[in-house]
Amino acid sequence: MTPMLIEVPIRVRYAETDAMGVVHHASYIIWLELGRSELLRSIELPYTEIEARGYFVMLAELKLRYRAPARYDDLVLLRTELTRLRSRQILFSYQIFLQKDNSLLIEAESDHIIVARETGRPARLPADLLQRLKPETIPGITQK
Amino acid sequence: MTPMLIEVPIRVRYAETDAMGVVHHASYIIWLELGRSELLRSIELPYTEIEARGYFVMLAELKLRYRAPARYDDLVLLRTELTRLRSRQILFSYQIFLQKDNSLLIEAESDHIIVARETGRPARLPADLLQRLKPETIPGITQK
Amino acid sequence: MTPMLIEVPIRVRYAETDAMGVVHHASYIIWLELGRSELLRSIELPYTEIEARGYFVMLAELKLRYRAPARYDDLVLLRTELTRLRSRQILFSYQIFLQKDNSLLIEAESDHIIVARETGRPARLPADLLQRLKPETIPGITQK
Amino acid sequence: MTPMLIEVPIRVRYAETDAMGVVHHASYIIWLELGRSELLRSIELPYTEIEARGYFVMLAELKLRYRAPARYDDLVLLRTELTRLRSRQILFSYQIFLQKDNSLLIEAESDHIIVARETGRPARLPADLLQRLKPETIPGITQK
Repeated sequence: MTPMLIEVPIRVRYAETDAMGVVHHASYIIWLELGRSELLRSIELPYTEIEARGYFVMLAELKLRYRAPARYDDLVLLRTELTRLRSRQILFSYQIFLQKDNSLLIEAESDHIIVARETGRPARLPADLLQRLKPETIPGITQK
Repeated sequence: MTPMLIEVPIRVRYAETDAMGVVHHASYIIWLELGRSELLRSIELPYTEIEARGYFVMLAELKLRYRAPARYDDLVLLRTELTRLRSRQILFSYQIFLQKDNSLLIEAESDHIIVARETGRPARLPADLLQRLKPETIPGITQK
Repeated sequence: MTPMLIEVPIRVRYAETDAMGVVHHASYIIWLELGRSELLRSIELPYTEIEARGYFVMLAELKLRYRAPARYDDLVLLRTELTRLRSRQILFSYQIFLQKDNSLLIEAESDHIIVARETGRPARLPADLLQRLKPETIPGITQK
Repeated sequence: MTPMLIEVPIRVRYAETDAMGVVHHASYIIWLELGRSELLRSIELPYTEIEARGYFVMLAELKLRYRAPARYDDLVLLRTELTRLRSRQILFSYQIFLQKDNSLLIEAESDHIIVARETGRPARLPADLLQRLKPETIPGITQK
């Protein structure tokens, strides 16, 4: 599979900071989710459609390395990449950069499993949804 | 109706602070919700049971006055009072105190309507649930 | 004073929802703060500059009326207006609309006081900052 | 070093859930921080004292495995363990259990570095603080 990726600019909200004066470490994790949403939207398979078809994409594993903190009002760039796709599993990797100097703030990976909404049990994505997640079939997707 | 009230101690979490070095103003609002949960639990009508019966208690209006800020690791006391009860409406009022000197940090009120889970439309609480929300019928409830 | 206003589109994040399936009521409050940030940036007085000059703009009072909920992935439009300006006090009002049908979701007002960073005590904004908050002096600001 | 650990019960807040009907994956990360706070308090070295002495304990790396979700109003048990201590580095590991059936929900590890508040640069904890973090010197600490 050719990996697909998307870059999303994010402006740091005041509520995302903490008393250390920097972005709270849990705030970055909400940005990663936003990156996944925007990647899926960019290939015209919004996550709302996956849920409407009866599936949740649930987080199974998460790893983050915090290299440097962002601050209130910083503009950061979130790069999200779909790195592995199986009928039962999706992997993403992420990098967050400070836009003003391009320095790397965060590296992360997440591992997700497909769950049926009705039963809450692991499931397989149907073939048509899986097909639409393969970027080479979709013209105009950013590829490495 | 005799008003009912409950007091809940809350320890400030680091994630609840912001770059001003104090508790972020939205964090208090999550505590108010916790106060409502604990008040309902104290009269043996946990909110999970209201949802299981097919109703949401949705927020319709919220007012807060911020008198002084709490800080990380402070112990605060949240006083929650059910001040008005109708089959379609519940009102709560709140006070948050800093435990170490009893100073008043926050005053708030919230106005809620009953909504049917299925339709999302305004509804009436059934008589038995309404009855259980009236404190004079339940022995041992803290009353003013 | 001629009131100034700004409109900001916001995409609902998954983390901003709750188990009712809609946006949690505290998430809107974080958007209001974002509206204030963007309004200040639009007049070239970013809030970071106010803090760098030694002042916090602290929330003193907040009122919200919740008319209808937003959901995950909705695009909403946040209208933020500076409605009153004193050397010690700033008032904002807000409306949040669902972009797809222009329906009104939220109405809100907030009342802020100026506080000196060093002392944490109420203070006056210096005349030059106050002047820059008056929109008629700044060409190109959206006015009603 | 003998590892030290603490167990803290946590009641799930409504605001910690999301539209999947379960606890949002970022909420667990805020609980881990709470576990660290309570562990430090239990050995009479509250994190506020570390900050007052001029140090931040900053998160450098975080790993979580999500085994099963918690839901609103669940009572969970968070077990936090200090697993490694150096003058520049502290490691914690965590397990979160559902109290009603003792099932394992989350496993996590975090790696922290010491940073000087003034400079934001890596630093060493002074010997007296380091000594107080060694549980064998403190009577009455829960040990494995």
